[in-house]
Amino acid sequence: MGFATADQAEAAFYAAFEARDLDAMMTVWADDDNVACVHPMTVPLAGHGAVRVGWKSIFDAAGKFAVQTETLSLQQVGDVVIHCVKEYLTIGDETAPRPPILATNVYRRDDAGWRMWLHHASPIQVGDTRPAVMH
Amino acid sequence: MGFATADQAEAAFYAAFEARDLDAMMTVWADDDNVACVHPMTVPLAGHGAVRVGWKSIFDAAGKFAVQTETLSLQQVGDVVIHCVKEYLTIGDETAPRPPILATNVYRRDDAGWRMWLHHASPIQVGDTRPAVMH
Repeated sequence: MGFATADQAEAAFYAAFEARDLDAMMTVWADDDNVACVHPMTVPLAGHGAVRVGWKSIFDAAGKFAVQTETLSLQQVGDVVIHCVKEYLTIGDETAPRPPILATNVYRRDDAGWRMWLHHASPIQVGDTRPAVMH
Repeated sequence: MGFATADQAEAAFYAAFEARDLDAMMTVWADDDNVACVHPMTVPLAGHGAVRVGWKSIFDAAGKFAVQTETLSLQQVGDVVIHCVKEYLTIGDETAPRPPILATNVYRRDDAGWRMWLHHASPIQVGDTRPAVMH
């Protein structure tokens, strides 16, 4: 079962993330071998099963946290929507969010509705400084 | 003018990157306000003009380098192709590649052919250690 819009899928993604609710998280993802999920500083997890294992290990390790997002860019072509968002995580009892994480989120529509197919999250800042990375 | 396949667009992207050829690079990108390019540890550059400025500043600053890629995952739905690739850069006269960069590359097909719409590159390793990043 998918969602009526990509925005609704994204809202469910971040709600499940914040709630550390693995089943809710995995209903957002397409049940397909080709979905891909990149957590910060890691290689992609490919396929619904591997993506589930990745989120389980994160949720098992995490205490409570809150997530705020800011959309930076948005593309839609036919049955594909791509969002680039900044994620601001506030962890435990901290009073201010950590430096933002940048995420590219890809949603696709099929007969069931909109679901997530790719999440690529990466740091914008590591530690106190922004290292110069050649690219 | 686009390319006959997404793979050809990707080959042209990395050839232009390695050659530090700005005009060749920008022919790979769709001429559209909605394209987005994320260089490591930075926020997205949105739109063809901003993406061009970003590549120009990289090419102006860079000496020679070589790029090898390894495809990690691949999705195609209709007129959209998404690749996750590891990029191995060998810089100047160094004899071994730097730690890999992970890139999500999105290609779209229109009447002109396949072109790049999104490039999100991020480090897998910063410095000598892989920092634990909460996510």
